[in-house]
Amino acid sequence: MSIETAISALRNLLEDRLSTNKTVRDQHGQNEAYFPVTPPDAVAFPTSTQEVAQIVKICAEHDCPIVAYGTGTSLEGHQLAIRGGINLDMSRMDKVLAIHDADMDVVVQPGVTRIQLNDDLRATGLFFPVDPGANASLGGMAATRASGTTAVRYGTMRENVLALEVVLADGRIIRTGTRAKKSSTGYDLTKLFVGSEGTLGIITELTLRLQGQPEAISAATCCFDAIDDAVKTVIATIQTGIPMARIELVDAKTAHGFNLYAGTDLPEKPHLFVEFHGSETGVAEQAELFGEIVAEHGGAEFVWTTRTEDRNALWKMRHNAYYAQVALEPGLSSGATDICVPISRLSEAIDFAVAEGERLNLTVLVLGHVGDGNFHCTISFDPEDAKQYGRVQEFIHNLNRTALRLDGTVSGEHGIGAGKMKYMQEEHGEALSVMRALKQALDPQNLMNPGKVIP
Amino acid sequence: MSIETAISALRNLLEDRLSTNKTVRDQHGQNEAYFPVTPPDAVAFPTSTQEVAQIVKICAEHDCPIVAYGTGTSLEGHQLAIRGGINLDMSRMDKVLAIHDADMDVVVQPGVTRIQLNDDLRATGLFFPVDPGANASLGGMAATRASGTTAVRYGTMRENVLALEVVLADGRIIRTGTRAKKSSTGYDLTKLFVGSEGTLGIITELTLRLQGQPEAISAATCCFDAIDDAVKTVIATIQTGIPMARIELVDAKTAHGFNLYAGTDLPEKPHLFVEFHGSETGVAEQAELFGEIVAEHGGAEFVWTTRTEDRNALWKMRHNAYYAQVALEPGLSSGATDICVPISRLSEAIDFAVAEGERLNLTVLVLGHVGDGNFHCTISFDPEDAKQYGRVQEFIHNLNRTALRLDGTVSGEHGIGAGKMKYMQEEHGEALSVMRALKQALDPQNLMNPGKVIP
Repeated sequence: MSIETAISALRNLLEDRLSTNKTVRDQHGQNEAYFPVTPPDAVAFPTSTQEVAQIVKICAEHDCPIVAYGTGTSLEGHQLAIRGGINLDMSRMDKVLAIHDADMDVVVQPGVTRIQLNDDLRATGLFFPVDPGANASLGGMAATRASGTTAVRYGTMRENVLALEVVLADGRIIRTGTRAKKSSTGYDLTKLFVGSEGTLGIITELTLRLQGQPEAISAATCCFDAIDDAVKTVIATIQTGIPMARIELVDAKTAHGFNLYAGTDLPEKPHLFVEFHGSETGVAEQAELFGEIVAEHGGAEFVWTTRTEDRNALWKMRHNAYYAQVALEPGLSSGATDICVPISRLSEAIDFAVAEGERLNLTVLVLGHVGDGNFHCTISFDPEDAKQYGRVQEFIHNLNRTALRLDGTVSGEHGIGAGKMKYMQEEHGEALSVMRALKQALDPQNLMNPGKVIP
Repeated sequence: MSIETAISALRNLLEDRLSTNKTVRDQHGQNEAYFPVTPPDAVAFPTSTQEVAQIVKICAEHDCPIVAYGTGTSLEGHQLAIRGGINLDMSRMDKVLAIHDADMDVVVQPGVTRIQLNDDLRATGLFFPVDPGANASLGGMAATRASGTTAVRYGTMRENVLALEVVLADGRIIRTGTRAKKSSTGYDLTKLFVGSEGTLGIITELTLRLQGQPEAISAATCCFDAIDDAVKTVIATIQTGIPMARIELVDAKTAHGFNLYAGTDLPEKPHLFVEFHGSETGVAEQAELFGEIVAEHGGAEFVWTTRTEDRNALWKMRHNAYYAQVALEPGLSSGATDICVPISRLSEAIDFAVAEGERLNLTVLVLGHVGDGNFHCTISFDPEDAKQYGRVQEFIHNLNRTALRLDGTVSGEHGIGAGKMKYMQEEHGEALSVMRALKQALDPQNLMNPGKVIP
């Protein structure tokens, strides 16, 4: 019973869809977090739920860890096989199985990506709203409870997964939830698996809620002299009940970075990037109301557009904030972290991030989905400079402690993975023992993504 | 170790806040379901979380079942101590602990009722939207994953509980979730306890999401010659993306009952009762769009109002559908059941309910929150007439089986309680074994509301 014997049993099952090739393993050991390359012992490429179940049974028999792998875009190393074993690469389970346009839901395999799904949906007048930026797989997005720029209006994966098919740690296959919009029949297993980061089972099918494409979409940008005025504008906007589709904060440094890499001429000040969805008149009314709030808080350069190409350029720029960082500090690496706080504490949290970055002499960009109280800090560092990297770690640590002090959470959307386990006890207290009991009940051998989520 | 020794230990702790008085016990054994009076052995009236924890510890020590009790308005007998033991009456834990108006959330004890909370919130410009009709306790609403008329717009308790304090089966106290609007830090315990019907722990505090009172509210009614036209109007309305705040179906018999008990002069045809929330222009635009859809489907008597007193009268009438039933069949009892299906299957489900009621020679009223695909049937019966009662059971059984056949769920909002356990295996299949494993992990003695949810 070992990883080695598991691999030979898996090879019999999967033949050339099991790879121990170094290039393939290294590729799966890459990560967008700050972890060293961590290759698994092998990579399996299942093509069906039944096959996933067979793989899981073999792994259980041989005590071999299994880590599901989507597109590898996680930011906390979720997909890394840190205790060895196999990566289950779900990219060949990439079928859209059923589009129920009348019910506004869709059934997909876990390897379907967000952009692939929306391409498939284009003709239906429907779209899937959750948008974390990266073209992540939907299985991975569910497993990490992803969200992104549109969560303020449409919710996170938590609100948008109706039902799941899951392979349990012993190879049994279950279905959670139904296509009905609500239910009160027993424990909400769908919500238990969403955000469980592959530690309780492998998601093999998802039923997702869809939205109608809005009749009208418009976007706007505006800027402020001080970041605090931008944040206050966000708070007032949310409290006024304007149904913002996106409301993103971008700090002055990031605006500067955008100008460098995208050739824009944004004023190098804190900005809000926003989007409105609704009817023609609704969108105009929302924009007008928002414009009034911006003016009240000293905002300027309010630019409003309904042109699709302008909007696309805006969000492409926003999603490529990584390149802004690179443009600001060429040749350096970049680390990202996110926290989420009640919106009344958002100013305090962002003020802390800015001051702490200055104190530690780090280039910190602040940007994020501030309508939810969620923001990101990306920090440039030289991987060769251990002292500087220590300050990056100190920054992240102090920011996470600040989130907890302000009644918030150490991650709004990036998740725990291997990176944030050290905060689980402090954030959850005794509730962590309940999570541990659930993990023990569903994965007694601790083979499902071991070393993640539960310390 | 027995219920008796538990009661004497509890008496030492609670003194006159433990009652074995027959009237008190009988009162707690009443139910709005179709179960006989099922008094607990004693009723405890805790006043704090610490006291709940002490009570739970004593019960664990003496193997005594514990069943939380809110207002007793459950429709599937959730609150009945069917295996004896004590009812934990939460009505003295009725404080609104903190209103965070800037964050649009509120912290309450579980005995606070929905109407009490909204009265307390009036001056803030905020409200709590979930409205199951009954003035239920918020703890009970969370435990049963309640919803109601406004869920189509604002979601159910699932979407509106941000965080919980829970006393576990061994008396430990945990906190789940935070006041942040989203989080991806570990298993979603909040959603696990919401809808767990007191079988995993006792909810002792809730943090709830609030909504801003809309600038404008308007309501409308309209009627149709055939129920199918009403249902098709609902489906088209939802698919058009009009953000309906309420969209309720009332069948012809119910309209007749309303006329009898409330003295209205509704056309005795299938109706839709709807409500719009938004800005002045938004509400007018929504109503106009909805009116067009109604006309396309042959609807008539479209009556639109913005007067608060008209709206209140409308929803009071709707919530008192029970009295419509009584007016139609004076002297008889009334049973209620609910199912929820994907909206594309709603016509089929309602057609089945109507035909099955006729086949079984029962007076069945069909009404409900059809925007979610959720509807209720209430059925008059003579409790002395065993044969008729058998036909009522047959109706409910066949309706629930129909929900499952149509990709739906046997309860959209009433829950499982003692009434619907027999469908858990059929609805959830192998997933039920996962629920059983969770129950075993968190309540190994099976003392938390035993005999409910998990067969």
